[in-house]
Amino acid sequence: MDLTTTLHRGRQRTPDRAATIFNDRVTNYRDTLDRVRRFAAGLVGVGVGVGDRVAILSLNSDYFVQYFYATPWAGGVLVPLNARWSVEEAIFALRDCDARVLLVDAAWAPQAARLAEACPSLRRIVYADDGQPPPGLTAFAELASSSAMDDVARGGDDLAGIFYTGGTTGTAKGVMLSHDNLLVSALGGLAEEFLTRGGRLLHAAPMFHLADLAGLNTEALIGGTHVILPSFEPGSVLGAIGAHQVTDTILVPTMIQALVDHPSFHDHDLATLRRVVYGASPMPSLLMARAQDALPDVGFLQGYGMTELAPIAAILAPDDHGDQGHRSSAGRAAPHCEIRVVDENDAECPPETIGEITVRGSNVMLGYWARPEETSVALRGGWMHTGDGGYMDADGFVYIVDRMKDMIISGGENVYSAEVENVVASHPSVVMCAVIGVPDERWGERVHAVVVLREGRTLDPVTLRAFCKKHIAAYKVPHTLDIVDALPLTAAGKVLKRQLREQHSR
Amino acid sequence: MDLTTTLHRGRQRTPDRAATIFNDRVTNYRDTLDRVRRFAAGLVGVGVGVGDRVAILSLNSDYFVQYFYATPWAGGVLVPLNARWSVEEAIFALRDCDARVLLVDAAWAPQAARLAEACPSLRRIVYADDGQPPPGLTAFAELASSSAMDDVARGGDDLAGIFYTGGTTGTAKGVMLSHDNLLVSALGGLAEEFLTRGGRLLHAAPMFHLADLAGLNTEALIGGTHVILPSFEPGSVLGAIGAHQVTDTILVPTMIQALVDHPSFHDHDLATLRRVVYGASPMPSLLMARAQDALPDVGFLQGYGMTELAPIAAILAPDDHGDQGHRSSAGRAAPHCEIRVVDENDAECPPETIGEITVRGSNVMLGYWARPEETSVALRGGWMHTGDGGYMDADGFVYIVDRMKDMIISGGENVYSAEVENVVASHPSVVMCAVIGVPDERWGERVHAVVVLREGRTLDPVTLRAFCKKHIAAYKVPHTLDIVDALPLTAAGKVLKRQLREQHSR
Repeated sequence: MDLTTTLHRGRQRTPDRAATIFNDRVTNYRDTLDRVRRFAAGLVGVGVGVGDRVAILSLNSDYFVQYFYATPWAGGVLVPLNARWSVEEAIFALRDCDARVLLVDAAWAPQAARLAEACPSLRRIVYADDGQPPPGLTAFAELASSSAMDDVARGGDDLAGIFYTGGTTGTAKGVMLSHDNLLVSALGGLAEEFLTRGGRLLHAAPMFHLADLAGLNTEALIGGTHVILPSFEPGSVLGAIGAHQVTDTILVPTMIQALVDHPSFHDHDLATLRRVVYGASPMPSLLMARAQDALPDVGFLQGYGMTELAPIAAILAPDDHGDQGHRSSAGRAAPHCEIRVVDENDAECPPETIGEITVRGSNVMLGYWARPEETSVALRGGWMHTGDGGYMDADGFVYIVDRMKDMIISGGENVYSAEVENVVASHPSVVMCAVIGVPDERWGERVHAVVVLREGRTLDPVTLRAFCKKHIAAYKVPHTLDIVDALPLTAAGKVLKRQLREQHSR
Repeated sequence: MDLTTTLHRGRQRTPDRAATIFNDRVTNYRDTLDRVRRFAAGLVGVGVGVGDRVAILSLNSDYFVQYFYATPWAGGVLVPLNARWSVEEAIFALRDCDARVLLVDAAWAPQAARLAEACPSLRRIVYADDGQPPPGLTAFAELASSSAMDDVARGGDDLAGIFYTGGTTGTAKGVMLSHDNLLVSALGGLAEEFLTRGGRLLHAAPMFHLADLAGLNTEALIGGTHVILPSFEPGSVLGAIGAHQVTDTILVPTMIQALVDHPSFHDHDLATLRRVVYGASPMPSLLMARAQDALPDVGFLQGYGMTELAPIAAILAPDDHGDQGHRSSAGRAAPHCEIRVVDENDAECPPETIGEITVRGSNVMLGYWARPEETSVALRGGWMHTGDGGYMDADGFVYIVDRMKDMIISGGENVYSAEVENVVASHPSVVMCAVIGVPDERWGERVHAVVVLREGRTLDPVTLRAFCKKHIAAYKVPHTLDIVDALPLTAAGKVLKRQLREQHSR
């Protein structure tokens, strides 16, 4: 299978149907394909060869969708970077994958010179946003003014994209996914009625994350329309649903909360909405009940997975939301993969017994970019080891009880403690630190730092946050800070995170 | 993905649910898995190594299903042979693929000695049927008495099976399909609501054909129950639907006709039936209308494809059956693949223009077993060239207008003219012959021979049929015969089949 196939199908079946609606700009399948063919030719023109990486730093837009198809059309490899990252983080990833071309939106454009200087492999930085490009950047339309090219038609096991994810070691790793990885996950989701046939999908969650891209691929398989907002803003989401007859959307739990809490919630016409897919972090059961009350005609569907699984591994179907017990689970293995809970020797645990969740199937990543050792550890025995602790019940429902990786999920974003600790520890006042997630009503979990100071030094949260923001994305920066005399340690000198979480979760 | 994954899922979710119901023998998922694990160990015990071929010559049964899972479980490669073949044809395929083990049912058991003698690679012939095995054959239960083994867990692009299909050159070719080929086709079908969730699938069409095996894989993905009849007999089918609350079945048009024509049709309780999937040959529109009248609560779904496409390439969804025009099409490209109609230079034809139907996707075969040249011709440019002529309309519906391969479809079976001609021409009275399909009310097409005799010789249909039956399956043998003075030839000496069909289609 091949990502661009869905565009060819749109051309054959519904050339006049809207492929994308961005704000109020409607682009049909025929014109989308035309832009893709021309932009792809432009990419080749500036030296993108088969397998070369083409990165993007942007909020959602119709340009993003065109980038998503033009890159494989030209033979390139997608690298959607987190637009919320710090410049330092972006530079790390661009250098790590040796990106040839980078697309930026208006918010990132001012950093272009710095990125170009730090990443000599970059041949061109493309301005993929409205308005005139700042000096030194190439306009998207200019690159797309070339004559059109034919699809190079990569597909199957070919590398489609590199998707960066945090790591327990403190640096981001590039997850290599093939065309088949992405499309098998989308097909398996579709087989479980992930999205509504003949509908319109609202993209409000960031497209640079695989959760929303999974929706993009699934909607594309059924030839529907992408309604795109630059980013999540509850009033805009509520307005767009009515304005564009949206049937489906993909959100993280904190976004669902923001919607149902929104003062104008009841003023909007949400009658077309049929499906809300959620995931990326646990759904509090009270919030689930509130959302179901507020949207009684909507089928809620949970997708559980991770970037390494392209991304869906388990689905909690709308019908399974009726059962209180099942509603607290992550669902059952999607049809395209198998889930096993295993003990430390990789032997399958009996039902109801906690172990590590592992997954096997054609959605499992090719590996980590340029990290053969971490790849072979993660994929040992042919199974992706998720790092999530959990159990399976006697009906095959999977329950997540612990993240074995030291990770915080805040507002749907994964924050690896080690990465934040590296930054906090580099502050001159800090002797030792631990970063943990503590329960937070709005974000699910909040990043919290516990710090031991150098003698005679002080540190306040505002100073620490300002320091951290220079190095890491704002969502990773500790919201709150506790100063202690000493951290609880194991005999081996390892911080007792579980004990810290209990002490600081008030 | 891996064929055996569906069994593991059944074990995790619904160990007590019936996996197979054969006549009145019910076997749940737990026991099916247990037999599979033991039979797989038995296969390894008699020398089946990873990649070795394990063939079967049998009507449908629960043994067939266990064979279907035990073979990949042990690391072997499935080779389901057409149980309607002549002994000569079976020997050809067994030798062609170098089969290590063969399973036979009671009807084939008497030929075991002859097959063993002709195929020295065969280490064991297993009796996979009820009752005592004849002398010299190993009982299925005996081989399954070994201790159980773990799944070798082949999957993805690994070879799953070799499926023989006729060839234009007159000899059968083995189509190599991977686990992913088979499961991508099933997943794509499921995404188009191929079968009813939570239902029971009746297998009355032969499992040795990929059409029914596609149903097996699809039903397995949703963890349902296989209700199995040894072969198609209209009274038994009608009885089984009511007796076992069948929701879905897969039939060829001639079978649908036999059902609605059956005198007891209205005496049966068919209320549970929701879906009839049909394919393998064109559906006459009058028959379609009659079937819809007779079964008003059933959604009819057409699958178009071929063995080389594992097998689904296009689907005519139940909703598309409402439109008279679309109903005469083969449907639209299934979500897992792309269809293009191309001219003789492999350039895409505009809509409504006839060309050859080609298909690209992860369902396209690995190739023909031991036939690299025929493989590269069929798969040139990365597209499977189906040999079917047709066009696509402006909505992406595909219409088949001609089979470019010289092939007859009789009762859902493909009959390659060249193969029958080889046999007819070897009759001592025959100088020259052509075999064509002529319209037939019952079989869709009927195999018809047009023959030029040696001077002074005679030939009658009964004699010709008896002669042919010694070499080829009964369904390939000419039903009818015309004796002519000369065949219409092109200047190059090629028989003008189209002209012959017009002359003899009365």
